[in-house]
Amino acid sequence: MHRIEVEAEVDVLSMNKKLAAENREYLRKHGIVAINIMGATGSGKTLLIEKTVDALSNEMKIGAILGDVICKADYERVVKHGIPVEAVNTGKECHLDAHLIHHRITSFKDVDLILIENVGNLICPVDFDLGEDYRVVMVSVTEGDDVVEKHPEIFRLADVIIINKVALAEAVEANVDKMEEDAKNLNPKAKIIRMDLKKDIGFDEWLDFVRGVVRR
Amino acid sequence: MHRIEVEAEVDVLSMNKKLAAENREYLRKHGIVAINIMGATGSGKTLLIEKTVDALSNEMKIGAILGDVICKADYERVVKHGIPVEAVNTGKECHLDAHLIHHRITSFKDVDLILIENVGNLICPVDFDLGEDYRVVMVSVTEGDDVVEKHPEIFRLADVIIINKVALAEAVEANVDKMEEDAKNLNPKAKIIRMDLKKDIGFDEWLDFVRGVVRR
Repeated sequence: MHRIEVEAEVDVLSMNKKLAAENREYLRKHGIVAINIMGATGSGKTLLIEKTVDALSNEMKIGAILGDVICKADYERVVKHGIPVEAVNTGKECHLDAHLIHHRITSFKDVDLILIENVGNLICPVDFDLGEDYRVVMVSVTEGDDVVEKHPEIFRLADVIIINKVALAEAVEANVDKMEEDAKNLNPKAKIIRMDLKKDIGFDEWLDFVRGVVRR
Repeated sequence: MHRIEVEAEVDVLSMNKKLAAENREYLRKHGIVAINIMGATGSGKTLLIEKTVDALSNEMKIGAILGDVICKADYERVVKHGIPVEAVNTGKECHLDAHLIHHRITSFKDVDLILIENVGNLICPVDFDLGEDYRVVMVSVTEGDDVVEKHPEIFRLADVIIINKVALAEAVEANVDKMEEDAKNLNPKAKIIRMDLKKDIGFDEWLDFVRGVVRR
């Protein structure tokens, strides 16, 4: 059983690498920056995209790709904000891959920034480069303050680590300092943002990051 | 790429089915009841196991199998409660399977009940029968009140659906009635328990379920 899994994985990953390079080339050619936002269901990915679009649409052209196993609830939320949105239902797959988003990426021509919401979990998206420029991992304090140390792989590859819902830390008995320390230990280079989207904590810091990478 | 994935999946699933049947046969022969507890990271699976062990150890012999991608944090929490515990690190795999737990299951001979904690997410464990007798899906209101409708597959196969951390519903603006309704629509036969483990809400109802299935 394991033999079969391993052989298939190698083929799938080498195909993915090739297609990710094609996506990256397309983005570069069209001057588009793509940000891959990963995190568990309920960590706040969709709300982050909605608020970012509202805050920055007068400064830059934004598109979004929303991955989910099923249903278009996130798509319907984001499309109301007046930007081009592509929904990707993965069926039973627990991550996006370069192939799944290839046609979506190449349907955007006029945008400066594509925000990609990956499928909600901290395990599967790790191995699949989408061709994005930046990787964001978002966790909520409600997932428990051991969530970072339990998922080292995904935090190691992040450019930005967002610890969301910090205003609830006391109520759920989560130690945000510990979460930040775990993140720093795993990935000293990542930018770490303490956030609470419903209280507007840390959101300006995020907007500055987005502005910075789009204006490079 | 998709062709390769599908072929491998069929082989893996048919092997899994065979091994799940062997696990089931072993459990039946030894009079052991096994409960597979699934749910996202932070939904409360480990705490449920800890509290169940504390509450029922004087009535029955309990063993536990704890699945996680990496690290033994959950193992260390549960083993302190004085029961036999087996840890399974899946590496990059996002679910347990019948093969992974086969040797663990067959290492338990003297127990009445095995509590199995699956890897933390609501997508991957769906396809993998472990040979368990009952399936529990646990969600926290902090994951958002759309979490049930977003993951229909896993809720459809549950015998028990636990909606945990209900005492936080107001703080996170989650509609528990909606979550329960979504669960009922997807799976009218499942037992639904509103729970808050830190406030002892719904815990007695869970214990009654466990007592009932072990005494069958």
